[in-house]
Amino acid sequence: VKKAELSPIAWKEGVVLILNQTLLPDRLEYIEATSPERVAEAIKKMEIRGAPAIGVAAALGIALAAYHSKASSINELRKDLLKASDILWKTRPTARNLFWAIERMKSIFLRDFPDVDSLKTAVINEALKILEEDIEINKRIGRNGAQLIEDGDTILTHCNAGALATAGYGTALGVIRAAVEEGKKIKVIATETRPLLQGARLTCFELVYEGIDVTLITDNMVGYVISKGLVDKIIVGADRILRDGHVINKIGTYTIACVASIHKIPFYVAAPLSTFDLKTSVENVVIENRDPSEVTTIRGVRIAPEGVKVLNPAFDITPPDKVSAIITEKGIVYPPYEENIKKLFE
Amino acid sequence: VKKAELSPIAWKEGVVLILNQTLLPDRLEYIEATSPERVAEAIKKMEIRGAPAIGVAAALGIALAAYHSKASSINELRKDLLKASDILWKTRPTARNLFWAIERMKSIFLRDFPDVDSLKTAVINEALKILEEDIEINKRIGRNGAQLIEDGDTILTHCNAGALATAGYGTALGVIRAAVEEGKKIKVIATETRPLLQGARLTCFELVYEGIDVTLITDNMVGYVISKGLVDKIIVGADRILRDGHVINKIGTYTIACVASIHKIPFYVAAPLSTFDLKTSVENVVIENRDPSEVTTIRGVRIAPEGVKVLNPAFDITPPDKVSAIITEKGIVYPPYEENIKKLFE
Repeated sequence: VKKAELSPIAWKEGVVLILNQTLLPDRLEYIEATSPERVAEAIKKMEIRGAPAIGVAAALGIALAAYHSKASSINELRKDLLKASDILWKTRPTARNLFWAIERMKSIFLRDFPDVDSLKTAVINEALKILEEDIEINKRIGRNGAQLIEDGDTILTHCNAGALATAGYGTALGVIRAAVEEGKKIKVIATETRPLLQGARLTCFELVYEGIDVTLITDNMVGYVISKGLVDKIIVGADRILRDGHVINKIGTYTIACVASIHKIPFYVAAPLSTFDLKTSVENVVIENRDPSEVTTIRGVRIAPEGVKVLNPAFDITPPDKVSAIITEKGIVYPPYEENIKKLFE
Repeated sequence: VKKAELSPIAWKEGVVLILNQTLLPDRLEYIEATSPERVAEAIKKMEIRGAPAIGVAAALGIALAAYHSKASSINELRKDLLKASDILWKTRPTARNLFWAIERMKSIFLRDFPDVDSLKTAVINEALKILEEDIEINKRIGRNGAQLIEDGDTILTHCNAGALATAGYGTALGVIRAAVEEGKKIKVIATETRPLLQGARLTCFELVYEGIDVTLITDNMVGYVISKGLVDKIIVGADRILRDGHVINKIGTYTIACVASIHKIPFYVAAPLSTFDLKTSVENVVIENRDPSEVTTIRGVRIAPEGVKVLNPAFDITPPDKVSAIITEKGIVYPPYEENIKKLFE
């Protein structure tokens, strides 16, 4: 029996329900956020994570500001919304969808409205539209990507680009879900994804929950499983894709891409158009550095001696020559990326 | 002030003192083993680990059998020693040094002796010789390898091929120690080395203890640090090296070798001659698969949902084309390996 799909984020009359992903897979607990500040905190702490999901969260955070605003004029309301946008903008620097969602919300609330209530309604409706569209977009990504997947494939994925990383269904895992829905027999190998273990905690949780065959490995086993011929394809999500095809994604993605490249295993990236950044060049991409304690401790247990220095970049950059194709809701994009990504937006 | 070097294993009048490495870096606690069975247990549980160290441990385990044997004839004593050898032989399948040490001990106790006591003495002395030689060999490896290291280098290492992996001084870390002793300014990047975190727990502990500059990363950050130009050289140890230069080492080594190969970073292996296996061909190498709970839990804390499948190979195989040189006590071996490894043993 297929269980109901996990919903990582939802709107319920002035409350944003956020599934607290830091507690998974031990506990399924929702945060009830009633302010943009609480949504911002959830993004920062990675209680909600995944580029599309934090875009949706930011939109709903602005919707919360609208819903609860006590402003009596459109100008005052806009001030509240700009303040909320600003707080949400500063939560995490790398994922493109966050900024995309806030910009889209701004383009609504800077329009002319006859009164406060109609502006509030428009803002809330736009946020809900972003949420609903995200699921629809992922299903289209899934259908497009499933063409690349053959019956019997074993697919390696990194981090969690699943239902939990989006408003639902997922990007990389959306492709896997769509292939399974088409009746293809698919096995998944999930890398645990240190430091925060989104692969072990979230991807395995999602796939075990839905009864899709999943095997967990540590990140450093990628070379082993690929050299043993255990992997047919790799599919990952993305936090930001540049106009020339550079893919910024969870730390570890580039290491996998190197092994894939040596063994000539297809390396696919699944992401919506809202993940693309057509303006920034690769040298200007900001890679978030997170707290060293994420590396020196695991789920609260210390694993390294005091006094050790630590690097903790949250993302790395995979250059276009290591990306076999990018799967979007508008179709599959192949190299040359500069040219073909441009066409996507025409 | 340089502290006294850590001693992972020692002999003291019929007792083998084994530093329990599963407790590091939290606690510095020695196991007092008085039987080969307890030494075998320590090897299996990885209370002591590292190919040279488990070779030494096996030799001392046989010495314990000799010391405590109640045999009244040489034949009875040999039976006790063969039984001990057999128990120690079956502890772990991959590291060559284990079998090398047991074979060397056998070559002693199968010789003719005038009486029980002289056989006992010979066995104990041979084990102590293996222990002492190991440290000397590592210092020679260190001196040889230090020629490859330049002042100012940052060296990435995986797992722990340090004092704790040997009788003392270390192989890969021996090279780093020797370079530091020569006055070179060296920085180390240590991969944490899931599942058992020997990099985070042991390498960082050893280097912080001695005041050598060390930065901890998760295994999946290898692509990031190398692509950022933060790594000049890679040095790892080995559990077994085949006659054609295939290197069997801690899981994750091959993943690093792939990234190194793409970025043309020298990838060095440091190991004593006792790690070489001139007989087995690569397809016959046994890779130990360990308990899935090492992957699904970290230091006792569960990180993955129940019901997930797991792979847990303890080693992987790096082919000779990805190995820049092998540093031994007899000098540095370059390709072509088949030819040059043969010369090592002439």
